[in-house]
Amino acid sequence: MSNRILHKGLKSKVMSAEEAAAMIPNGAILGMSGFTGAGYPKAVPIALAKRAIEERMKGKPFKVTALTGASTGPELDQAMGLTEAISFRFPYNGDAVMREKFNAGVIEYQDMHLSHAGSLVRYGYYGRKDNKLDFAVIEVTKIKEDGTIVPSSSVGANTAYFDVAEKYILEVNEWQDERLEGMHDIYTVSGKHGERGPIPVMKADDRVGTPTYTIDLSKVAAVVVTNNPDRNAPFKAPEDVHKKIAQHILDFFDGEVKAGRMPKNLLPLQSGVGNIANAVLVGLNEGHFEGMTSYTEVIQDGMLDLLDSGKLKVASATAFSVSPDGQVRFNKNIDRYRKQIILRPQDVSNHPEVIRRIACIAMNGFVEADIYGHVNSTHIAGKGIENGIGGSGDFARNSAYTIFMSPATAKDGKISAIVPFASHIDHTEHDTMGIVTEFGFADLRGKSPKQRAKEIIEKAAAPEFRPILWDYFKRSMANPSAGRHTPHMFEEAFSFHTRFLKTGDMKPKK
Amino acid sequence: MSNRILHKGLKSKVMSAEEAAAMIPNGAILGMSGFTGAGYPKAVPIALAKRAIEERMKGKPFKVTALTGASTGPELDQAMGLTEAISFRFPYNGDAVMREKFNAGVIEYQDMHLSHAGSLVRYGYYGRKDNKLDFAVIEVTKIKEDGTIVPSSSVGANTAYFDVAEKYILEVNEWQDERLEGMHDIYTVSGKHGERGPIPVMKADDRVGTPTYTIDLSKVAAVVVTNNPDRNAPFKAPEDVHKKIAQHILDFFDGEVKAGRMPKNLLPLQSGVGNIANAVLVGLNEGHFEGMTSYTEVIQDGMLDLLDSGKLKVASATAFSVSPDGQVRFNKNIDRYRKQIILRPQDVSNHPEVIRRIACIAMNGFVEADIYGHVNSTHIAGKGIENGIGGSGDFARNSAYTIFMSPATAKDGKISAIVPFASHIDHTEHDTMGIVTEFGFADLRGKSPKQRAKEIIEKAAAPEFRPILWDYFKRSMANPSAGRHTPHMFEEAFSFHTRFLKTGDMKPKK
Repeated sequence: MSNRILHKGLKSKVMSAEEAAAMIPNGAILGMSGFTGAGYPKAVPIALAKRAIEERMKGKPFKVTALTGASTGPELDQAMGLTEAISFRFPYNGDAVMREKFNAGVIEYQDMHLSHAGSLVRYGYYGRKDNKLDFAVIEVTKIKEDGTIVPSSSVGANTAYFDVAEKYILEVNEWQDERLEGMHDIYTVSGKHGERGPIPVMKADDRVGTPTYTIDLSKVAAVVVTNNPDRNAPFKAPEDVHKKIAQHILDFFDGEVKAGRMPKNLLPLQSGVGNIANAVLVGLNEGHFEGMTSYTEVIQDGMLDLLDSGKLKVASATAFSVSPDGQVRFNKNIDRYRKQIILRPQDVSNHPEVIRRIACIAMNGFVEADIYGHVNSTHIAGKGIENGIGGSGDFARNSAYTIFMSPATAKDGKISAIVPFASHIDHTEHDTMGIVTEFGFADLRGKSPKQRAKEIIEKAAAPEFRPILWDYFKRSMANPSAGRHTPHMFEEAFSFHTRFLKTGDMKPKK
Repeated sequence: MSNRILHKGLKSKVMSAEEAAAMIPNGAILGMSGFTGAGYPKAVPIALAKRAIEERMKGKPFKVTALTGASTGPELDQAMGLTEAISFRFPYNGDAVMREKFNAGVIEYQDMHLSHAGSLVRYGYYGRKDNKLDFAVIEVTKIKEDGTIVPSSSVGANTAYFDVAEKYILEVNEWQDERLEGMHDIYTVSGKHGERGPIPVMKADDRVGTPTYTIDLSKVAAVVVTNNPDRNAPFKAPEDVHKKIAQHILDFFDGEVKAGRMPKNLLPLQSGVGNIANAVLVGLNEGHFEGMTSYTEVIQDGMLDLLDSGKLKVASATAFSVSPDGQVRFNKNIDRYRKQIILRPQDVSNHPEVIRRIACIAMNGFVEADIYGHVNSTHIAGKGIENGIGGSGDFARNSAYTIFMSPATAKDGKISAIVPFASHIDHTEHDTMGIVTEFGFADLRGKSPKQRAKEIIEKAAAPEFRPILWDYFKRSMANPSAGRHTPHMFEEAFSFHTRFLKTGDMKPKK
């Protein structure tokens, strides 16, 4: 018996992952933990994947709906994707196998703002006829004597799934450090219309909830003990192009501070996941800003650096997304980090109410941006969906500064990140303030679409693509059947994409 | 001397509109009142328009930046548009002359979420080098003895403009009924990071501010007396197609109540402006729902009907948009309406914090929607921008229900409101839950893009367009160079639009 299960009543619920998975019927709707490669269930999903194979061999269907916080690890999305044990997936995915299944059209996926996940489930939109989920399958660190639950390395949408599911399966993962206890701030955004109050977070470091989950213990159908590591990817050292992007952003911050629009310690930083975002954090760590705070989704290695150097006072998030090396460093210094890091439900970390109140700086990657400032964060023309919008929309819509960043080209310069019309639009012209590449920072604030086009082409587009972008824009301005506010030529709006799909290069042949 | 100016010090500031306008230099940045055809300044803008002509005759430029709450009336946008006295306009427009100037490319326009207008101005993005505006030009109903100001028929972004402008010009409009006093709830969303608290509105009828503006009287540079009516368009009686749309929405509400997802008195209603929105209100008035509330942007005639019948308990908004007939009725019953109607700053009426907390039902018109659920609210292919996104994004992103409604066709059936790819995207697939036409209600909740396509084509598209929409979708699904998550054929994505521009019909010739 694991020494992580201290509540007497729940000790009797301990069983194998296979026994727990056997309780889940075909067609069940599951709310599962997991946000990035952290805190997702690691045994029951594998058991469900195996069960899907067994049932299929008997000629029977076995598919479930899998709702999570965001992406998870291979034990969930890869195993259940490979075996097509999932019929419907929501609200985010980062797994390559699962992605292939979406783009092959065999698993249905809804890509959704992460702040919406919990509330839409609570509204009943993903439930059975009685609006409930069948099971919440949640990884936890520990079950305390009083039955309260120490959360794992992500909080995600767990409070919503606990609220709405009929039964619970808890995975107690002994790999998670028990000293995580006290790092979480569990505040539940629920209640009906007229009952919900403000979320009392005024600053990134405000704690407004409890360190543990309090759940209805009678709903616990199974407790499964695991001892498996989270799986997050290592970060690469920033490449030259990433460093240039980071420098443009730092220079922009300098300008804003000098202009009196931004305080010297900046505003609460939100940073997307990935190598560019990490490069910005590295740049901030090498730079001169002090006393910063972060109100974001995930804690990545660059955040640990900033906490270690003392330049960052606090990091609020909903999950860890640290590299294996970062994990070692994290565990070593966990007692210090516990005072500096707060993990909240994604209902709170991504809530428009808090983000707008505290006026974040949102920094997220993009796939492509068009000349008028619409941004594609999710789709690659010719391939399909990549990951998903994640929390970028929550932060982009509500922050004081909304910055999207990407190298200006991909595929050895054959793909331009700046195009006439984005082939999928996740963030509209109304929600984008800065488009940054290694070539510069296009500042879109207070500009009309035409003014933005000039700024984006001249500052952000790769020089070799500027002539054909200007050509498109100028001929669109002269197009007699287009208004000159946001002019397009619809025959050619996707010409960069169609050319690439035909020739492998967005540039025309010379 | 007007008996509406009771503060002694400000009596000395009374002057003509021409004298006030003469204080405004070329290139000035003005924050002006006005939201729909209500509460906008009616004399100084005309004087500015005349001044632009005079200066032009002298060979001198005269152009200002005009920031408002939303649309205004002809005295502002038509007069200043005609004379090209505006160089940059923000955040919304509904005037035909101004629209022509945008689409001719001679006046720059930024179309922006209305909840953003005040905060972006406060952040300093629209100001001079010192981040301030030059003048706030604000229509008011009365200046009280103590110098507090009774607002006019709209509140809009006035609190932001008072906060950020260096000087004020007040237009005291004697046409506005003095009994408006007490109807407003002025709560200022300002302060720096770490200073801003929650907006304490928990229900549509919560009053959290003061009935008057308290301003820095030393900044008042001029007081101009006017006596001019607001100008809002009359509503048409609902046409058959509008009634059908309304009925689909009412049927949807019935289903949600029955399913236990919506209370019997519904949720706070937000309703866009226009004939379809009004038809829904008429339908609700003839229907069986009681005890409703409204948390919206504008009070239109249908809202007055619902208040008169007692089916609606309270209507919270930021402006009136009642027809001339509605205005007569309003003035007649103003003492009752004062208890039922609350006018707030658009910072509050449209704030994501409040909208998400109280879980509104958002109902807004659309120009076109694509098969995957992206919505164009602003642009007409071949013409340019129409009005703007207004508050539709504020409500669509944050409400519990997000419904977009339009007739399925326009121009005698030659234009389909459902297209393969929207020619401009204002609301993405992540923000749309219902697409409604006279043919039905496409319920997009919990559906993948492919599932949404089926729902939209079968329920919302006009029957005569369904075959060519299915043809596009099916061939896109078979397109080897498209992922099957949101498949497109980029050569044909805008084929409906290009065909219409060539032949005047989105349908191919038979």
